[in-house]
Amino acid sequence: MLRLTLDMDDVLANTHEKLVSIILSDFETTLNEKDLNSKSLRELLHPKQLTKLNKIIDSPGFFADINVMDGAQETVYKLSKYYELFVATACMEFPTSFKDKFDWLKKFFPFIPWTNIVFCGYKSIIQSDYLLDDHVRNLVAFKGQGILFSAPHNLKETAYKRVSNWNEVSELFLPIK
Amino acid sequence: MLRLTLDMDDVLANTHEKLVSIILSDFETTLNEKDLNSKSLRELLHPKQLTKLNKIIDSPGFFADINVMDGAQETVYKLSKYYELFVATACMEFPTSFKDKFDWLKKFFPFIPWTNIVFCGYKSIIQSDYLLDDHVRNLVAFKGQGILFSAPHNLKETAYKRVSNWNEVSELFLPIK
Repeated sequence: MLRLTLDMDDVLANTHEKLVSIILSDFETTLNEKDLNSKSLRELLHPKQLTKLNKIIDSPGFFADINVMDGAQETVYKLSKYYELFVATACMEFPTSFKDKFDWLKKFFPFIPWTNIVFCGYKSIIQSDYLLDDHVRNLVAFKGQGILFSAPHNLKETAYKRVSNWNEVSELFLPIK
Repeated sequence: MLRLTLDMDDVLANTHEKLVSIILSDFETTLNEKDLNSKSLRELLHPKQLTKLNKIIDSPGFFADINVMDGAQETVYKLSKYYELFVATACMEFPTSFKDKFDWLKKFFPFIPWTNIVFCGYKSIIQSDYLLDDHVRNLVAFKGQGILFSAPHNLKETAYKRVSNWNEVSELFLPIK
């Protein structure tokens, strides 16, 4: 059975959507929702705003109520019949997130056992055939085949096979019915 | 630079020593310290005692004050000059341990950055040249070269290169001065 490793933020969980919602409601900005989905928040926000956002991300509870990406639950369940699935999330920068992330996975993806969950920093440590991730820095460090999941901060990347949503993940990885 | 991944419990941290101390002080048992260091606690304790011990392990704070293995700090620091070091601990079974483990590593091994810390379930996910671990089940699943760190539960194993303490790790991995 081939091993497929899934990133969490902006792949399983719609983290960017929550960040955009916080910026629109709590930040002083002229940017609208379309702007905030056009490129990376690092390019769009001022350094002080990024510091404020990082503090929010690093607060207990931030990861607890993030929405699941459309179609992720159904497709990941199907994938679990054909692949050895792992979830690997680079969350060591935010130690307060550990428990929220673990509980979130248990709630929305209960069929992924704790044995197959990884909290890490650099993803070069991941031994897998495939890695589905929205960050090029993770795919560059990875030794298997990397697949880029579309997100505002990677729209101009051309070096990796790209999927834009979970329907496309399904088409790429699941056999035709 | 070759990558060397270090297990935490009973390799960097003297977890077995703390468990023995708890058993001797809080459990009703005729076993003495020598008995408790002769084989695995799974073989030595009754199922009810194992359940009680697992509850203690799964309590917040259990991992916070474990002693560092003799010689580990000095040798790991030296190893960090010659290898790309990672720490990988199979702690997903005990989610309450996440914060204590992260803080413990920061306190006793501050030169290992958060980017190189991994919390996992199965260690088959680890991509590394070497893995130093006290559990054969982790070494079996690992694709690089596994080195067994001696512990009461692995004394009869013969399939792996073995080290008995951090002096021997130093001799095996560091160049002669």
